[in-house]
Amino acid sequence: KINPDRLWDSLMEMAKVGPGVAGGNNRQTLTDEDAEGRALFQKWCEDAGCSMGLDQMGNMFARREGTDPDALPVYVGSHLDTQPTGGKYDGVLGVLAGLEIIRTLNDLGVKTKHPIVATNFTNEEGTRYAPAMLSSGVFAGIHTQDWAYDRVDAEGKTFGDELKRIGWRGEEETGARKMHAFFELHIEQGPILEAEGKDIGVVTHGQGLSWTQVTVTGKDSHTGSTPMPLRKNAGLGMARILEKVEEIAWSHAPHAVGAAGHIDVYPNSRNVIPGKVVFTVDFRSPELAVIEDMETRLRVEGQKIADDMGMEIAFEKVGGFDPVAFDEGCVSAVREAAERLGYSHMNLISGAGHDACWINRVTPTAMVMCPCVDGLSHNEAEEISKDWAMAGTDVLMHAVVETAEI
Amino acid sequence: KINPDRLWDSLMEMAKVGPGVAGGNNRQTLTDEDAEGRALFQKWCEDAGCSMGLDQMGNMFARREGTDPDALPVYVGSHLDTQPTGGKYDGVLGVLAGLEIIRTLNDLGVKTKHPIVATNFTNEEGTRYAPAMLSSGVFAGIHTQDWAYDRVDAEGKTFGDELKRIGWRGEEETGARKMHAFFELHIEQGPILEAEGKDIGVVTHGQGLSWTQVTVTGKDSHTGSTPMPLRKNAGLGMARILEKVEEIAWSHAPHAVGAAGHIDVYPNSRNVIPGKVVFTVDFRSPELAVIEDMETRLRVEGQKIADDMGMEIAFEKVGGFDPVAFDEGCVSAVREAAERLGYSHMNLISGAGHDACWINRVTPTAMVMCPCVDGLSHNEAEEISKDWAMAGTDVLMHAVVETAEI
Ligand SMILES: NC(=O)NCCC(=O)O
Ligand SMILES: NC(=O)NCCC(=O)O
Repeated sequence: KINPDRLWDSLMEMAKVGPGVAGGNNRQTLTDEDAEGRALFQKWCEDAGCSMGLDQMGNMFARREGTDPDALPVYVGSHLDTQPTGGKYDGVLGVLAGLEIIRTLNDLGVKTKHPIVATNFTNEEGTRYAPAMLSSGVFAGIHTQDWAYDRVDAEGKTFGDELKRIGWRGEEETGARKMHAFFELHIEQGPILEAEGKDIGVVTHGQGLSWTQVTVTGKDSHTGSTPMPLRKNAGLGMARILEKVEEIAWSHAPHAVGAAGHIDVYPNSRNVIPGKVVFTVDFRSPELAVIEDMETRLRVEGQKIADDMGMEIAFEKVGGFDPVAFDEGCVSAVREAAERLGYSHMNLISGAGHDACWINRVTPTAMVMCPCVDGLSHNEAEEISKDWAMAGTDVLMHAVVETAEI
Repeated sequence: KINPDRLWDSLMEMAKVGPGVAGGNNRQTLTDEDAEGRALFQKWCEDAGCSMGLDQMGNMFARREGTDPDALPVYVGSHLDTQPTGGKYDGVLGVLAGLEIIRTLNDLGVKTKHPIVATNFTNEEGTRYAPAMLSSGVFAGIHTQDWAYDRVDAEGKTFGDELKRIGWRGEEETGARKMHAFFELHIEQGPILEAEGKDIGVVTHGQGLSWTQVTVTGKDSHTGSTPMPLRKNAGLGMARILEKVEEIAWSHAPHAVGAAGHIDVYPNSRNVIPGKVVFTVDFRSPELAVIEDMETRLRVEGQKIADDMGMEIAFEKVGGFDPVAFDEGCVSAVREAAERLGYSHMNLISGAGHDACWINRVTPTAMVMCPCVDGLSHNEAEEISKDWAMAGTDVLMHAVVETAEI
């Protein structure tokens, strides 16, 4: 069994890096705070006797050697970056649980045949740089590294430049290393486990996602002296499309969700009718056909709305992944670990995207989930209990050690 | 007659200060660019033999002496600040027309009984600091100066501090000086004069305005893992209210307009359901009862929408002025000047708010309007012809000189 107090202390220590404004964190990818969090994680890993690898995407790999020099490592981890108003556990728990496993195995003097590598993937959240899970995506060969380097944030700074600036661009070719298996512990970020009173979610599938960036172009003009019939109010166009997004998502409920989290209005002045609105629609479903249907309807209905209002509209896909089925062997290892340890558990479909979804493309992968209070995440008030963190990390350790073989 | 080339050259020279990104200007109030524009105006005024007064709100008063030491001055002017993506003429034409009148009278060696004072009012636009027409409002006793000093911009900087920082906070008590009359030339910012083929708008009234800042509070949570029935999507709440704003304005058309130009979404991340949206609704009408009705309906219908969605909503009035009837004597002076000079003209109700609307409370006031291309304003593409500028300034000069008496 892992040491829950040590795990919790590390979580609270990491939460001091890039604090938020309401008890959570703002440690967005490739910021100075991200660099500081990475350095802290590296120090902890080195103190635990690991060697640190760093690839050209800034992915970090803390390795505890195994007994068989020919055996591929079992990887375990998640991400240290957060939302701008994020919680203390989203991603961080998964990374520090990997470290806690290594610390526990050190305490017990347990050696595994396969090395174990605690991993931190760069830019999982996708807020500063779309798409989410960018670096695990490059690792898995989904995106080219050049394309990833060229992503720009809202201020026009590229991913490649910022990665270099914070000093975490490594030499190792991204995706060159081979894995025996990958496991990720993550908070559920939804309400199901808590509602069902289960300690552990055995994640069998991940739902797919489509991000469409919509640009509605009207004409900025004076709010007072432009008569109603002559207006091309891009803000109103956006409003009508948001209502349509809601309708489209509900038409597939409960097997789909949809919303726009990002909305920028130009020039954003009280007495200027918006001439342009840029916003990103996030549609998700466990069924690929449903995602495709929602995406198509957004484009068709959005075009209709813009045409009716005499405005221009453009659609750009800025992120997406297909629904995922995790590896049956790894999923069984998680389920059996929960069973063996006596934790209550149930199968789950992940509502969020995770690095595991991409890594599953290149190695057998599974995920463990633990509950979070009120299912709340991507909110500074995100909360979990120490017991939940312990149960999740225990199950993770047993699945990892089982796979890494003693 | 004024010198149209000199007026135009000065307009183009001033447009070089705080250039925009698309041929217009970004010379927002109390920025370094505002300070630079003020210094240029001051230099030109001093070159024209004027003395410069500066009050505690940063309002600038360039005085050309009259022949009667006891006569109150006739004031003429507008504002040099612009929208973030504003045009080269909105406000600027009115200030530089005041200067052009003084230059022309100098050329002709004409002396007036009353002094003539070319005026620049601080923060007319209201983008950086709501409400619009802030400093003419303090001058007219509508707002207290302390309240004005405490206004904050989006970065939390106060008006008082920023006015001091740019070096344009004067000693003179705001509103202490008395006026004989005030005249303001402004581009129409609407399509009527151009459509009717008239050179001059004789502004008899100004419509009133109400700015209500609306804050919708839902709950920020994950766009992927939060089931549809558990969402409190403040972005969707905003969308529904924008549709209602449109409906309310149309219900009073053509005697009313409404829109939201300013919309801020929090935390504005692609995969976070908006927990809070703050936006400002701008309603206008020439009839006070219509404005009051629209404002009330916004609050009632907005509350209903929020209640239905289980969200919080708050309303704050952040700007407003009642419809204005300008001074009959001054309006006649404008109409007679146009008639005498042979320019085609028509009566107009101003769709926008102007410093003249507040100054009308403390002295007899009137406005002259000239057309702008396609009625477009609050847009970098705002355009006028040199002939229109000349006609407007000629009429302004004749009305001013008539009132200042030779
Ligand atoms: N787990 C998580 O919040 N990942 C970010 C990508 C997503 O939006 O699902
Ligand atoms: N003229 C002008 O654009 N004034 C700004 C105040 C308003 O919104 O009407």
